[in-house]
Amino acid sequence: MKKNTLLILCLCCFLITKGENGYDLWLRYKPVSNHILLSVYRKNITQLITGDSSATMNIIKNELLTGIAGLLQTEIGYHHSVTRDGAIIAGTPRSSALIRNAGIATQLQAAGDEGFVITTKKINGKQCILISGNSEKGVLYGAFHFLRLLQTEQPITSLHIVSAPKIRLRMLDHWDNPNRTVERGYAGFSIWNWHTLPTYIDQRYIDYARANASIGINGTVITNVNANAVILTPAYLEKVKALADVFRPYGIKVYLTARFSAPIEIGGLKTADPLDAGVQQWWREKIKEIYTYIPDFGGFLVKANSEGQPGPQDYKRSHADGANMLADAIAPFNGIIIWRAFVYSHDNPLDRHKQAYDDFVPLNGKFRDNVMVQVKNGAIDFMPREPFHPLFGAMPQTPLMMEFQVTQEYLGQGTSLVFLAPLFKETLESDTYYKGKGSTVAKVIDGTLDGHRLTGIAGVANIGNDINWCGHPFAQANWYTLGRLAWDPAISSEQIAGEWLRMTFSNQPDFLKTASQLMLESRDIIVQYSNPIGLHHIMGTGHHYGPAPWVSNQQRPEWNPVYYHKSDSNGIGFDRTVTGSNALAQYYPGARKQWENSHTCDEKYLLWFHHVPWNFQLKNGRNVWEELCFQYYTGAERAGKMRDTWNTLRPFVDQQRFEQVSMLLKIQHEEATWWRNACLLYFQTCSRLPIPLQYEKPGHTLEYYKNLRFPYAPGI
Amino acid sequence: MKKNTLLILCLCCFLITKGENGYDLWLRYKPVSNHILLSVYRKNITQLITGDSSATMNIIKNELLTGIAGLLQTEIGYHHSVTRDGAIIAGTPRSSALIRNAGIATQLQAAGDEGFVITTKKINGKQCILISGNSEKGVLYGAFHFLRLLQTEQPITSLHIVSAPKIRLRMLDHWDNPNRTVERGYAGFSIWNWHTLPTYIDQRYIDYARANASIGINGTVITNVNANAVILTPAYLEKVKALADVFRPYGIKVYLTARFSAPIEIGGLKTADPLDAGVQQWWREKIKEIYTYIPDFGGFLVKANSEGQPGPQDYKRSHADGANMLADAIAPFNGIIIWRAFVYSHDNPLDRHKQAYDDFVPLNGKFRDNVMVQVKNGAIDFMPREPFHPLFGAMPQTPLMMEFQVTQEYLGQGTSLVFLAPLFKETLESDTYYKGKGSTVAKVIDGTLDGHRLTGIAGVANIGNDINWCGHPFAQANWYTLGRLAWDPAISSEQIAGEWLRMTFSNQPDFLKTASQLMLESRDIIVQYSNPIGLHHIMGTGHHYGPAPWVSNQQRPEWNPVYYHKSDSNGIGFDRTVTGSNALAQYYPGARKQWENSHTCDEKYLLWFHHVPWNFQLKNGRNVWEELCFQYYTGAERAGKMRDTWNTLRPFVDQQRFEQVSMLLKIQHEEATWWRNACLLYFQTCSRLPIPLQYEKPGHTLEYYKNLRFPYAPGI
Repeated sequence: MKKNTLLILCLCCFLITKGENGYDLWLRYKPVSNHILLSVYRKNITQLITGDSSATMNIIKNELLTGIAGLLQTEIGYHHSVTRDGAIIAGTPRSSALIRNAGIATQLQAAGDEGFVITTKKINGKQCILISGNSEKGVLYGAFHFLRLLQTEQPITSLHIVSAPKIRLRMLDHWDNPNRTVERGYAGFSIWNWHTLPTYIDQRYIDYARANASIGINGTVITNVNANAVILTPAYLEKVKALADVFRPYGIKVYLTARFSAPIEIGGLKTADPLDAGVQQWWREKIKEIYTYIPDFGGFLVKANSEGQPGPQDYKRSHADGANMLADAIAPFNGIIIWRAFVYSHDNPLDRHKQAYDDFVPLNGKFRDNVMVQVKNGAIDFMPREPFHPLFGAMPQTPLMMEFQVTQEYLGQGTSLVFLAPLFKETLESDTYYKGKGSTVAKVIDGTLDGHRLTGIAGVANIGNDINWCGHPFAQANWYTLGRLAWDPAISSEQIAGEWLRMTFSNQPDFLKTASQLMLESRDIIVQYSNPIGLHHIMGTGHHYGPAPWVSNQQRPEWNPVYYHKSDSNGIGFDRTVTGSNALAQYYPGARKQWENSHTCDEKYLLWFHHVPWNFQLKNGRNVWEELCFQYYTGAERAGKMRDTWNTLRPFVDQQRFEQVSMLLKIQHEEATWWRNACLLYFQTCSRLPIPLQYEKPGHTLEYYKNLRFPYAPGI
Repeated sequence: MKKNTLLILCLCCFLITKGENGYDLWLRYKPVSNHILLSVYRKNITQLITGDSSATMNIIKNELLTGIAGLLQTEIGYHHSVTRDGAIIAGTPRSSALIRNAGIATQLQAAGDEGFVITTKKINGKQCILISGNSEKGVLYGAFHFLRLLQTEQPITSLHIVSAPKIRLRMLDHWDNPNRTVERGYAGFSIWNWHTLPTYIDQRYIDYARANASIGINGTVITNVNANAVILTPAYLEKVKALADVFRPYGIKVYLTARFSAPIEIGGLKTADPLDAGVQQWWREKIKEIYTYIPDFGGFLVKANSEGQPGPQDYKRSHADGANMLADAIAPFNGIIIWRAFVYSHDNPLDRHKQAYDDFVPLNGKFRDNVMVQVKNGAIDFMPREPFHPLFGAMPQTPLMMEFQVTQEYLGQGTSLVFLAPLFKETLESDTYYKGKGSTVAKVIDGTLDGHRLTGIAGVANIGNDINWCGHPFAQANWYTLGRLAWDPAISSEQIAGEWLRMTFSNQPDFLKTASQLMLESRDIIVQYSNPIGLHHIMGTGHHYGPAPWVSNQQRPEWNPVYYHKSDSNGIGFDRTVTGSNALAQYYPGARKQWENSHTCDEKYLLWFHHVPWNFQLKNGRNVWEELCFQYYTGAERAGKMRDTWNTLRPFVDQQRFEQVSMLLKIQHEEATWWRNACLLYFQTCSRLPIPLQYEKPGHTLEYYKNLRFPYAPGI
């Protein structure tokens, strides 16, 4: 490519966009800013040699050439043999003789079927870097990892990396509807344009697959768990096939959600009873049909008998009956069934917290080998802070899959900067005590405690058709986090924040220090100003936008905030001890004892497990009312400080993204103040205690906040 | 800016996007490819001098610097006085002494309050180019026109341009709903993100205003004519204000749609009767409130008593009563009321074609001075080909505003390449004969025939949140066309296609010749394969996607295709002569006589005005059935040829946009074949005549086409 063409292209796009629109995510491949490193990189990266061509190998080749051209600002040659130092050799032992004969069999063995080996080797007397794996998918992951080393300005002179994913299924769950609305979506609408599929392949589909491959995601459920049977009709299967064909060379399998009543709705049957032979036959044929379109179809994700969805219980059958029926039908094709444990009964329950456990523990071991039970990180519903779900460790004979929520339904939705890695890590590192101390949720999920080979982590996607994919520029970090933690739950939040910031914004140390602090504190801040000391589920009804602790008119008790905070003149909090719902009994003693006594309970969860009087003393000497005031005011104040912090980063960020984040932080600060005022004014009607004088008075009355309406809030 | 930074930026964005995503529309400012011209431009453009700074003047300055840097690949200096040849001087007589003293008063007078003067002048002995207007808006239009000269590689050595818009209101009507769905939108969803407004200003809002200013659009109705009163509540007026503040410096006024029943829905009144004092008072206060937010608010667009919308007839009042009530309330603020003439009665009408005329002609002259009546180009509804609306020329005392549809509701929606300039021009150049021969629709609209000063052309927008704004890359040309024709209805389709292609793709002669031919034929082609020889309104129900001439089960007769084609064993077509509905009587004799006799009728409109037997002979010797077959088969065949034509243009177009268009043309060809087969198979059940043997047999049965369902087609 001639330099003047380059010069040309760039001047315009730079001048016109006045910055970056965020579409390129963490794959911007901007030039290495450290000039010493740059020259080292240029010396060590001079040519590329890849294995036999294939769809995936071509992607690897193009990605490496693209990335290196952007990062090193040099066009390296593509060769068939090593002719000089600095050769990059990418391939599998099968596709490349150089790899086959490089003597890295041991490392390759350790890499497993999806992992990769990146190692420095002398070949024909030349210094080379090998990027290898036993599968092309592994090489692809290795190529992206190698580019990440350059993007994050790491040393590459002596590489000896062997990396294999700790989790087998690393998935995104899209709650996308056929009309392109996205349930709990805050980044526009669905990127799946069903109307123009299968013929029109939006560039987004390709870039979506590429971005996921770059962080190791290998599965995607493209339809909402509140499922629509239309996706199983031939016209739509054609469209799903088109997407699967795009995703395949990136190592990504497509999954669908199965509407349990589909045999009635599109099959013309009278029943969907899983024990009915006709129903079983219908699913066998439907699944066979799907595999004619998509030979590597991943399987079904099923939400059954939950929040009004049809399921086996409609026919007095168990979840296992339902899951196994589908599992038997899909087994011949090596597909799997992912069955959600997020259920709660239609009749007034004593404590929704207990339902999933009560329904599923009796089914431990009753599921087929190709069934996984997908469990949310907490027992209620993706709250800003929840104790880990008691099902973890309680179903040893059934592989449990983690369901995180990447989209920020309860964490500021599209307008808040909240980095979710600390939340995810908090759950993964929680100790279930199921096999004694150290039986962390991570070890349950990765199969080590029970020897499960089928393991998985899923994240409810935060992706929409906004130009920058995720709406909030920092929401991209949560997509990135899901992939990285699913690859290795042990990676630290600091590590993830650092990688993402370097690739997305800048490698400048001054920028990184401040920006990663901003990210790492953000989740604590939103907990403080929205759901402090164990409060939960006190948000607005339906759209879940903003505070509404006063709501008590919802048809089902567990849909009402008052059900969860139980605030009254005596005190506040949900008693889940023996004197209350005793949900605590679902935890192993080791876990239970950190929470069961209100005086020793980890105060982060005080009101989660205990109903305490307003004058209840906390360790810091404040009573519960004073503590609520302290938390809400401190949280809102810290939300305001985030704006000041961001303003100091202006020199490091392009104008467009800088201003986007500035405006969003202003909204977040307003929302934080709104949460603070609305919640304290409401709880004050119970505590009848004054807001301490050192705090500014709420700007509006409780009535004002109660009367706010958002008829068109997104994500419903 | 240092060249290496430029080099840097570009390499990545170029390599990563593998082409252009279309976001930059016709404002790409790519380098001038003709190197002789480039050196001439560089010689004649060396420095920029602008008038006193202001929001608009800063936009002008930045646009010129941005455009020139991109086009000429040189950074020209910004100066305060002319120091060398090649100075560009931009400003108004008020803001710039250089302009004031340049001796161009006569030209400026001719430019009027929105026009511009671009002229070559010697100033202080230096060769300069003056870009001037009496208003900053005029200078802004001039700046974009000057850049267009460079983008389209025109000579600039001796410029003497005076240009003033022929139409005063040049508007886009957005049919955007508060939930971000877009009625008849095929480019994603609404670009108005109401939830994050007013604080979050999406870059799109700015780029939208800029794109409109570049083609002279000076007004935008941001809400759907099927209106929602929520937009008139304070929370939403805050949001509207934020958009108005963004648009203002680009010379664009904001208009809203007024739901006629708003006084009841959000005002708590018992009635919306326009003669009720309380209702009048409510609107006076509401309008006063709006102007406190938006001091230059444009006014209301109203769809009343049409398709179920509320209106004055609900209270036995006339359209004039309704419009005048609002006009009186808004007059003190110099706002206007745009009242739509698209109405048809609730009771079974003899011919929907006649309704608007019958309802509105009696109201001629009964409207206030600040009311315009907005009339669709044709009497039915934006059909692929319609005779001009008989209202044009029939209400001389009332200014009529043209309503075109830029979004392709009936012209292939989001998947077809159809250039609409020929359609718009066909209407504008139609002769109403109202003041004798030459009384064209254009002359009615531009006010010359009746001396109206209030004139307007509106287009229903085709803009959505797809990255390229319009979904189909060529749909951008229709947005561009609306602006250019509203500025001057006399500009030819060839001129518009040429300008747009040069700016959007390439100035290469080989490209331009073929691509403009492709565009100029496209509308004829879709008429041929969907609605030939005067057929109309035979599309799918609801979503209006694809053919459905068989539909006869709709509640209202005029919602059924069979109502429009009246096909039966005797023949086909809608008799609108004296022997039928006599809609022809609504036209002046000069116009009428080209259509009233089936044997002399312009055959483009044969079935529009006549019901003729299947064996009716056309001038070409074919009978009607043979002609239908000929038209449908030829049209579908030509749609296929468009693909071959596009393939020859691969060398001139970037990969991403080339492939987008290729895939869409494939869909269009499939849709054309579908139209052909479905329509001919259906009409054959009436004609009972064979499809001539030279044509390939339809691939499916009529039942197959009748059973196609599109439950989630866009734009409903």
